[in-house]
Amino acid sequence: MIKRSGRRRGSPDTRDSILEAARRLFADKGFDATTVRAIAADAGVDPAMIHHFFGTKEELFRATIQFPIDPTTEIPDIVAGGRDEVGHRLVAAFVRIWDSPSGAVGASIIRSAMSNDWTLRLMREFLTTQIMRRIVAAIDLDPAEAPLRVSLIASQLAGLAIMRYIIKLEPLASLPSEQVVALIGPNVQRYVTGSLTAET
Amino acid sequence: MIKRSGRRRGSPDTRDSILEAARRLFADKGFDATTVRAIAADAGVDPAMIHHFFGTKEELFRATIQFPIDPTTEIPDIVAGGRDEVGHRLVAAFVRIWDSPSGAVGASIIRSAMSNDWTLRLMREFLTTQIMRRIVAAIDLDPAEAPLRVSLIASQLAGLAIMRYIIKLEPLASLPSEQVVALIGPNVQRYVTGSLTAET
Repeated sequence: MIKRSGRRRGSPDTRDSILEAARRLFADKGFDATTVRAIAADAGVDPAMIHHFFGTKEELFRATIQFPIDPTTEIPDIVAGGRDEVGHRLVAAFVRIWDSPSGAVGASIIRSAMSNDWTLRLMREFLTTQIMRRIVAAIDLDPAEAPLRVSLIASQLAGLAIMRYIIKLEPLASLPSEQVVALIGPNVQRYVTGSLTAET
Repeated sequence: MIKRSGRRRGSPDTRDSILEAARRLFADKGFDATTVRAIAADAGVDPAMIHHFFGTKEELFRATIQFPIDPTTEIPDIVAGGRDEVGHRLVAAFVRIWDSPSGAVGASIIRSAMSNDWTLRLMREFLTTQIMRRIVAAIDLDPAEAPLRVSLIASQLAGLAIMRYIIKLEPLASLPSEQVVALIGPNVQRYVTGSLTAET
């Protein structure tokens, strides 16, 4: 029989209190202003415990919303083809992930994000600091325009997720993935490289 | 004092049982296959009561999800400018409605639709029979392509609602409405009149 110390290090309770503290602090103060030390203090654990369970602060944030892919490795990979292919590559990667078993996770993330203002804030913070910021860094975009471009991209991809995978609106819901990429890719590409001034 | 008959015609209870029966039947059997008579039977009221409270079957459906505008009058009006302006006009109308007090209603509809599969089904049925079908009828589109075009439009508009009004992603959330129309209108227009074949 394995001897335990009095304090059950690494029990599900510890893990849960870390996740709960992280969710609250990331949603309230934002990702940048929240330190691992502050989360540890809030959860009543040693900061080393957080590193042990979750790794980096980025990985902890990912764990709080059970995000199915690792943005630190996937995003640079997706946009590796250069600016003029980003639209197609983003839609292709998005559809590939959503058509995989991760899609169900994605749907439950979106649905739970809609359930209250507090999870919405956490979602927005994740999108902004973990997804959009990495896309901006990975594509060579004018920094003054990048946030607007990426929020427009987000609007198309979120709507694709809602209509194809959650509401399951036909014929979009059953369309082969290559056709989704061919139809929506050019629109996303326009948000990446098209003009942002008023002329069409 | 006003004398009442034994049965409280038009009590909130009656209205609620009609709405509940309508929600269930529209979600289960669809709008076309559901008759006002069947809803009346399910709710245990006379069909005349439904007409008295809600008007037409379309108006009853609108009431079940508290949809803030009347699609029978608004949609023909929005697309009145002809096929080549539909993209801009749709985005302009969409933003005008969401920027108005109706926007809060829209947000609560989307958020409640996400809350369970049954409200999602009701939402999909409303979108399909009350919104998309009317857009298809109002714009002169190839009938073979129209459903795909309209579901693509829906994907962009739903994502705009989510990102600008619900998640409130910046800078899209604070962008002046004319800019939203100028930026997103051309993309919606491409779904209305652009090629649906694989070339970009």
